[in-house]
Amino acid sequence: MLNDIRKDYLLDRWVVIATHRGRRPTDFTRKKTTTSRRDSSCPFCPGNERKTPPAVLVYLKGDGGIIKKADTNGTRHQGWLIRCVPNLYSAFSPPERGESFKAGKAVGHHEVLVESPIHNEHPGVARISQLIHVINGYSDRLRVLLKKPYVKYVSIFRNHGLDAGASLSHTHSQIIATPIIPPTPHNELEACKKFHKESGNCILCEVIQKERNSPRFIWENESFIAFAPWAAVHPFEFWIIPKEHQGTLLELQHKTVEDLANALKTCLGGLNSLLNDPPYNFGFHMAPNKETKKLYHWHLEVYPKLTIWAGFEKSTGIYINVVPPEDSAQNMRQTIANLPQD
Amino acid sequence: MLNDIRKDYLLDRWVVIATHRGRRPTDFTRKKTTTSRRDSSCPFCPGNERKTPPAVLVYLKGDGGIIKKADTNGTRHQGWLIRCVPNLYSAFSPPERGESFKAGKAVGHHEVLVESPIHNEHPGVARISQLIHVINGYSDRLRVLLKKPYVKYVSIFRNHGLDAGASLSHTHSQIIATPIIPPTPHNELEACKKFHKESGNCILCEVIQKERNSPRFIWENESFIAFAPWAAVHPFEFWIIPKEHQGTLLELQHKTVEDLANALKTCLGGLNSLLNDPPYNFGFHMAPNKETKKLYHWHLEVYPKLTIWAGFEKSTGIYINVVPPEDSAQNMRQTIANLPQD
Repeated sequence: MLNDIRKDYLLDRWVVIATHRGRRPTDFTRKKTTTSRRDSSCPFCPGNERKTPPAVLVYLKGDGGIIKKADTNGTRHQGWLIRCVPNLYSAFSPPERGESFKAGKAVGHHEVLVESPIHNEHPGVARISQLIHVINGYSDRLRVLLKKPYVKYVSIFRNHGLDAGASLSHTHSQIIATPIIPPTPHNELEACKKFHKESGNCILCEVIQKERNSPRFIWENESFIAFAPWAAVHPFEFWIIPKEHQGTLLELQHKTVEDLANALKTCLGGLNSLLNDPPYNFGFHMAPNKETKKLYHWHLEVYPKLTIWAGFEKSTGIYINVVPPEDSAQNMRQTIANLPQD
Repeated sequence: MLNDIRKDYLLDRWVVIATHRGRRPTDFTRKKTTTSRRDSSCPFCPGNERKTPPAVLVYLKGDGGIIKKADTNGTRHQGWLIRCVPNLYSAFSPPERGESFKAGKAVGHHEVLVESPIHNEHPGVARISQLIHVINGYSDRLRVLLKKPYVKYVSIFRNHGLDAGASLSHTHSQIIATPIIPPTPHNELEACKKFHKESGNCILCEVIQKERNSPRFIWENESFIAFAPWAAVHPFEFWIIPKEHQGTLLELQHKTVEDLANALKTCLGGLNSLLNDPPYNFGFHMAPNKETKKLYHWHLEVYPKLTIWAGFEKSTGIYINVVPPEDSAQNMRQTIANLPQD
């Protein structure tokens, strides 16, 4: 029996969907690798603020609402809700004094956003009020970093579990600002531009309409839809995308931030429940700048880390996915329907 | 201190080289995951030929030299030197009778080349005579598969160790024939074409001249050179490339096959010794067809599997390599100089 071969909506990226293997979620749930115990040495837990560089942003509880601050002059703010600090092992670093850009050098920023003072408050189990802080934190840092003259793109992503590359288990995301538009968003944007030129429409707006009524549909609320993409590269991969066209997180409104918090909690909670807290990576895909926000439709891609990319994937750029997205969507729908309500 | 950011010779693929972390080979040698014990149930060991489909190619020892055969009519040849069989869990499959090609279907071939009757005769420790059979086996299957009307590319690759995706430990490679030219070889070929048009030369012929005298040089013999590439994506990544321009393995001669066998044994033996038999993937990158063999210069890329690609790599296409290729080449040169001679 022949497998399907499918192309991504945007990228020249192909995936073989192994339609006849009949792999079930339980085939992927044997190993549990996420460490969940709080460790007194955790550099992200309250009380250990000195183990990280001074924060570039903290949210503090004020009388009239949230107060946003940065650590300055050696202060380390206590009693924070979220905390964003430069990565100690940073891949990209700000230019040195007087330099604006240096050819061949990884100029930029690399930050860690500590998502909660509670070690283990990961998005799938978090309070909605806390997830709202996290999303607002992403937007605040995005706004600041996009204004730097040497920054061309800001990537916001999350590694969950040791097998997905998270060396620390305290709930956190990372933010990297790069001096180039990276290949993946560049190629995605080019595909969007081409479609827009030919049809006058946003290709991802059309994808939403199609997937909403497809067997790959997972979940929706007023502002967001979640589905397994047609050419999912990873078993149980899913995307979360705003129904209304938006280029970046900066276009979120008060109400849509709360809807996104609900989408994150529901979908990552579903994944958590379906596969016993699997390792995963997620990344926001966004328009690089104001000029392109009409062309590109931001979304979040969630990649459970259940299989290994090996010699074939790494030398050809074709991927093999042993779980059809139609099957993973069905499993996710059922699991989400049975999640306990808050 | 700023890290370097480097672009691949051919691809629009960027890597941050973390130049100031000072990671040493011993930082990567803690875990040993390669299973090396022979297991009586191993489907690739002699005596268990019935556990795999009939071979499409076996090499047998004859009086006048090697006899090449396929299993036919239910025979399973015994006493083989190498054996190539269809993969039981094949990603790509031949078209069904009467079909030549089917849109959206993964038409092609997926084969396993068992590299030796000796369970553990991996390339880094193999007899040169055995590696010569392996290389000739690759070429024989490549020649046959490229003639199929529905085949546009043939990928030959090897996964070594559980962490690099090898589910069976018996020494083996895989061969996949695809109905499209995959994105990576396609993009590499386009870059070669562009350079050729502008300069009249092969870009990789020029890379060889440059890297031979660079701190990334590792080893050479009369026909091949090994070096760590300028924009190595993986710690301890290296490439093996013929000094003379060749488009595919089909241009190898008797003498150059032996030189390639020596290059494989020396370089993979060096890697083995340096990092205590690490998991790795390798893949041959070749011209897709006769028409492009003047434009593309085949080579082997070897990727040790020592780190994890996480959210940033997967959502941007920029990679972070914590070991500069200059450092890994120096370590490889020293290790190879101290390898025991046969």
